[in-house]
Amino acid sequence: MTTRLREETPREFAVVLGTKVEDFARVIDGDLKRNDVNVLAWFAERGLVDAFARAGDVAKRARWIHCGSAGVENVLASTVWRAHEAPISNGKGAFSASLGEFGVFACLYFAKKTNAMRRAQAERRWIREYVGMIEGKTMCVVGYGDIGAHVARRAKAMGMRVHAVRRSPEKTSAADANVERVRGFGELKDAVSEADYVVLALPATAETNKMINAEVLQAMKRSAVLVNIGRGSTVDEDALVEALREKTIAGAALDVFAVEPLPSDHAFYGMENVLMSFHCADLTEDYFDLAFDCFIQNAKNRVAGKPLTHVVDKALGY
Amino acid sequence: MTTRLREETPREFAVVLGTKVEDFARVIDGDLKRNDVNVLAWFAERGLVDAFARAGDVAKRARWIHCGSAGVENVLASTVWRAHEAPISNGKGAFSASLGEFGVFACLYFAKKTNAMRRAQAERRWIREYVGMIEGKTMCVVGYGDIGAHVARRAKAMGMRVHAVRRSPEKTSAADANVERVRGFGELKDAVSEADYVVLALPATAETNKMINAEVLQAMKRSAVLVNIGRGSTVDEDALVEALREKTIAGAALDVFAVEPLPSDHAFYGMENVLMSFHCADLTEDYFDLAFDCFIQNAKNRVAGKPLTHVVDKALGY
Repeated sequence: MTTRLREETPREFAVVLGTKVEDFARVIDGDLKRNDVNVLAWFAERGLVDAFARAGDVAKRARWIHCGSAGVENVLASTVWRAHEAPISNGKGAFSASLGEFGVFACLYFAKKTNAMRRAQAERRWIREYVGMIEGKTMCVVGYGDIGAHVARRAKAMGMRVHAVRRSPEKTSAADANVERVRGFGELKDAVSEADYVVLALPATAETNKMINAEVLQAMKRSAVLVNIGRGSTVDEDALVEALREKTIAGAALDVFAVEPLPSDHAFYGMENVLMSFHCADLTEDYFDLAFDCFIQNAKNRVAGKPLTHVVDKALGY
Repeated sequence: MTTRLREETPREFAVVLGTKVEDFARVIDGDLKRNDVNVLAWFAERGLVDAFARAGDVAKRARWIHCGSAGVENVLASTVWRAHEAPISNGKGAFSASLGEFGVFACLYFAKKTNAMRRAQAERRWIREYVGMIEGKTMCVVGYGDIGAHVARRAKAMGMRVHAVRRSPEKTSAADANVERVRGFGELKDAVSEADYVVLALPATAETNKMINAEVLQAMKRSAVLVNIGRGSTVDEDALVEALREKTIAGAALDVFAVEPLPSDHAFYGMENVLMSFHCADLTEDYFDLAFDCFIQNAKNRVAGKPLTHVVDKALGY
């Protein structure tokens, strides 16, 4: 799988792969000790990313950090990297198509009364059950970046009306025909109150932490479904459990959780109106290839003296 | 629900509703005995449709038969109506949007490994499971009428490549950008052999009876999924059970069955790789309204002396 990294990363880079800090001894103290360090930080390994930054004089030699995932909260959790002057780029775009599909699938799962169908089949009962349509329904995408836009495009193509909420509504292109209305975070409650499906595609930042709290959930329709394909930290999970128990919302499709793996005694596992997908919604067969594409392209950009793509704003956290 | 029929059907028609042949005594022998008879035949009530045709002099007075559903096999099963000179119109188009959504949903259900997700959740197990994409995959729509076209449009919008097989490929408009290639029934096996998803939207006719037989199933990829939103009679169900048991295909989403309700001891109920939807895929909240729209519109057409829409070809059976 990592063969591609060795073969396609420009020769100017000496590729060293490791899963422990000790693996990088060659970089830190060996033949390459005078080289610049460019880090491909892999996903949720917060401890490794941080320990690596603190080892030897890596931090001093670091020139570029690339984060394989779209979310960079694990890299920024390291105070060294957060304060570092080297740019941090991310895997923006790599997983947007898979998450775009999943967002629409999650809506359909609830609309088509899939639980009732599966139960009837398991019990060998023929049923007559009304099913819903997503066509004509309203989706509110909260966090309208690349992933959110991918959900919106598909939802619109399936006949949904799409609204969006994002930190900077003004960043939405006037040419974006997929979304009818874009509002700022300040209008979140109004926006979700109109939606049949609320799809979260937010990054994990200080600002988005538990943004979907009891009040926001309370603003949703009783018939509405929450879909989270962003980050678990953006939802107050206790409040969500309460809303799902009291059925003040109809259901939730949760790909991400505040703590992953979600502990086996968590209430979500036992809830009929929760569809869990275990942070696998973007785990396609080509997942690593898609992530490597971003890194390799940026490595080529560096060699060619071109600007890096998808550089994150460390202050904003995405 | 039927209030609309009384209120919106043109005054020229005396609307009589019934669920038993005796209910129609008023029409057959009462005040309206000299009137022409126009029949809105409701769906699967084969016995009623036939008995009604044979009662009194109804058949002699019949001028128009409208079938609420898109499939007219239950009306044509009556030899009286089949041989009758009155036109038979159907509910073509009324249920195409809901079935179009369901066709795409069924593909996503299998692509996203929904069974594995549901099982893991029920067992409170966190899993890592690769999920598939429908984007880039090939769908073969067998029976490319209005329903098939609705599936195709949505599948194409979701990034799928769509091929089609239909009785009369030449009827496909050159302007139809949703489908890449349209073949006749003679090339069915070639067409399904290239598909990741085979979606059946065929009418029940003598020609389509068990058209999806062991040989056709054998031609499908082992990774392919069969979706049936047409009629159950078009599939050799014994052969399908065998294919699903031997896993020569990956799964089947079945909305329709040769016998409905499907007897509770049928193998389909117990198969993990079967998603059953109990002929509810088009049973939306507005199902009856959509069906009535067709009837009322045609009733208005008759009063206005305009041609009926969606008149079926009795010889072809659709």
